[in-house]
Amino acid sequence: MKPVYLDNNATTKVDPDVLAAMLPFFTEQFGNPSSMHAFGSSVGGAVKRARQQVQALLGAEFDHEIVFTSGGTESDNSAILSALEAMPDRNEIITSAVEHPAILTLAAHLEKTRGTKVHIIPVDTKGRLDRDAYRAALSPNVAIVSIMWANNETGTLFPVAELAEEAKAVGALFHTDAVQAVGKIPIDLKATAIDMLSLSGHKLHGPKGIGALYVKRGVRFRSLIKGGQQERNRRGGTENTPGIVGLGKAAELAGAHMHDEITRVAALRDRLEKGLLQRIPATFITGDVDNRLPNTCNIACEYIEGEAILLLLNRAGIAASSGSACTSGSLEPSHVLRAMSVPYTAAHGATRFSFSRDNTDEDVDRVIEAMPPIIAQLRALSPFWQGDGAAPAEFKPVYA
Amino acid sequence: MKPVYLDNNATTKVDPDVLAAMLPFFTEQFGNPSSMHAFGSSVGGAVKRARQQVQALLGAEFDHEIVFTSGGTESDNSAILSALEAMPDRNEIITSAVEHPAILTLAAHLEKTRGTKVHIIPVDTKGRLDRDAYRAALSPNVAIVSIMWANNETGTLFPVAELAEEAKAVGALFHTDAVQAVGKIPIDLKATAIDMLSLSGHKLHGPKGIGALYVKRGVRFRSLIKGGQQERNRRGGTENTPGIVGLGKAAELAGAHMHDEITRVAALRDRLEKGLLQRIPATFITGDVDNRLPNTCNIACEYIEGEAILLLLNRAGIAASSGSACTSGSLEPSHVLRAMSVPYTAAHGATRFSFSRDNTDEDVDRVIEAMPPIIAQLRALSPFWQGDGAAPAEFKPVYA
Repeated sequence: MKPVYLDNNATTKVDPDVLAAMLPFFTEQFGNPSSMHAFGSSVGGAVKRARQQVQALLGAEFDHEIVFTSGGTESDNSAILSALEAMPDRNEIITSAVEHPAILTLAAHLEKTRGTKVHIIPVDTKGRLDRDAYRAALSPNVAIVSIMWANNETGTLFPVAELAEEAKAVGALFHTDAVQAVGKIPIDLKATAIDMLSLSGHKLHGPKGIGALYVKRGVRFRSLIKGGQQERNRRGGTENTPGIVGLGKAAELAGAHMHDEITRVAALRDRLEKGLLQRIPATFITGDVDNRLPNTCNIACEYIEGEAILLLLNRAGIAASSGSACTSGSLEPSHVLRAMSVPYTAAHGATRFSFSRDNTDEDVDRVIEAMPPIIAQLRALSPFWQGDGAAPAEFKPVYA
Repeated sequence: MKPVYLDNNATTKVDPDVLAAMLPFFTEQFGNPSSMHAFGSSVGGAVKRARQQVQALLGAEFDHEIVFTSGGTESDNSAILSALEAMPDRNEIITSAVEHPAILTLAAHLEKTRGTKVHIIPVDTKGRLDRDAYRAALSPNVAIVSIMWANNETGTLFPVAELAEEAKAVGALFHTDAVQAVGKIPIDLKATAIDMLSLSGHKLHGPKGIGALYVKRGVRFRSLIKGGQQERNRRGGTENTPGIVGLGKAAELAGAHMHDEITRVAALRDRLEKGLLQRIPATFITGDVDNRLPNTCNIACEYIEGEAILLLLNRAGIAASSGSACTSGSLEPSHVLRAMSVPYTAAHGATRFSFSRDNTDEDVDRVIEAMPPIIAQLRALSPFWQGDGAAPAEFKPVYA
């Protein structure tokens, strides 16, 4: 039986066209783009083209606003550390309680080792940012705000354009971790006050090990990785040319497929949710169902363990996730669901199904068939399950 | 006419077997190794195997001493910044005047922004470290010494095992940028006091965008890129699994081909040098010809410009370099040759030919044929060339 892959927020399959675009740069056009000979110079053109492809997907004004990095985590770290270094008179940062570990781990480290004051803005039960708390934290002491564009676990979207304007008003830089948003929803950076944006190749059918940081023209920037003069002195190290070319192609394809993502893929996701909610009691959708990514479903089944669900789904040939792959192995429920005050009994049983353009109707049917007996089986073993567990009032199922 | 690629110290062609090993990890085994399902777990085994392949090439005691990074520059930066953070009571570093920009740029930055005291140890005219100056700089204030294993421009080898013992005696960590040495000469880290070592995939017929940092067990380490718990909390970010698998295979192949590198490839290099020195007057080999990499030739022709030589070699289908690709575009002679006090008139005309196992006797013939008329042509245009320029006494040609 063909495996069903519904963990596309963890990573995606490289598009065959992306791989085809990359291949010549391993064994034919393998030169170092900084070299002064034919092996190098031909590669330089391909790097420039890729930069323009990423620029187009982001709606950036200039191609040189795109800095290639090794991935989303490096981009996130670079943005925050750059801001603190470039604005030494400001020693506060603002972020949210539901960010990726690439932001939160760094923020905790800065707080501990450098005395940086970190404002962690809470979210409500739908995962929406507390706008009052955000405004209260903004001040001329803030070097940078980093708020994700879309949450990786629930798909909830943040009003980053508005948040960026508010940050700008106090002279703070605004960065967004858009690793989950880029390629899934339209982005037009030139129309916003967003100063920096992180993206990752492998979240949009590009290769792993490549990403980018958008740095708006005029933003003072300090490189994280220092070495040669690559990327206009903003990122040392020989360019990962196959990765860069692959990311460029992936960006182009993501733009071309975006309508499909927003319509067909969202319809698949909605059908899955409806099917599961109809068949499984005491279950609800987490996140802001009215304002989220088209591809993400996070469904919480009360009184059971997410890891057990994943194990049994895996036996049924279905790949899903209980949260971020980057924190798997932990016995605690996801920090995202805890921040949303999802009850402990339900947060433990949350499962994320994340779609891509590779998914089909058959994939949805398979999960709708496999999931209810898995939940029933696990609940039969649960000492807490009484057979009539109801979702708390504030988390009423979306599809009643 | 088939192009002749003699710029392997800048970057190498990916070995077809390396590419073949990588391919399944783009479109089949594309899972995130941190994921809790079949797509992820199968990839975890491949990452472990690659770690063991790198371990074997380095003669490291444990596979978990290998931390995968995005390349040599990140590894270098990580090592130095980690040492300064892990040993806050020590605020000095020692390095050499001929290091790669990945070390020197960072060191200059630390000196300027953090007040780190940086000891830059000079080299002699053969590029050998001033051992007395090194010993004088060592003290309990030194957090880390970073001395390259082999110089990228001349191939000169440094006695890193001895230098590491001396560093250990004052409690300093010892790091070596071994980007040019790994895969070319035997390395047995477990027999040394070396604490950290950087390597890069694309210098040994592996892919670009992947590298590793060896961190000896027990060495206190602080991650540069903070995020998820990948690489035992030493390097955040989704693992670049195709790159890691490719680096592992490249390490295995480098070990298998090392005898060829040390014998056949060195013989090609030596024949090239002999041929050029016989045919071109006022020309000499830079570096320590008695103690250098088997693949590197750096030849200085007095009274001409290196860039012009490269341009004409490129027209003849020959790819070479005037120094590090990472600093190309600069009109200054290489910082390495300046540190070696190579006369300005000669340093400008230095050309590096760097071989790999892909090179053949025909490649050598092509350069021996093409280079003398190029030099003669350029010297005819030089206002300084008198037709009888002789090499300075201290740089007598090696093959008289």
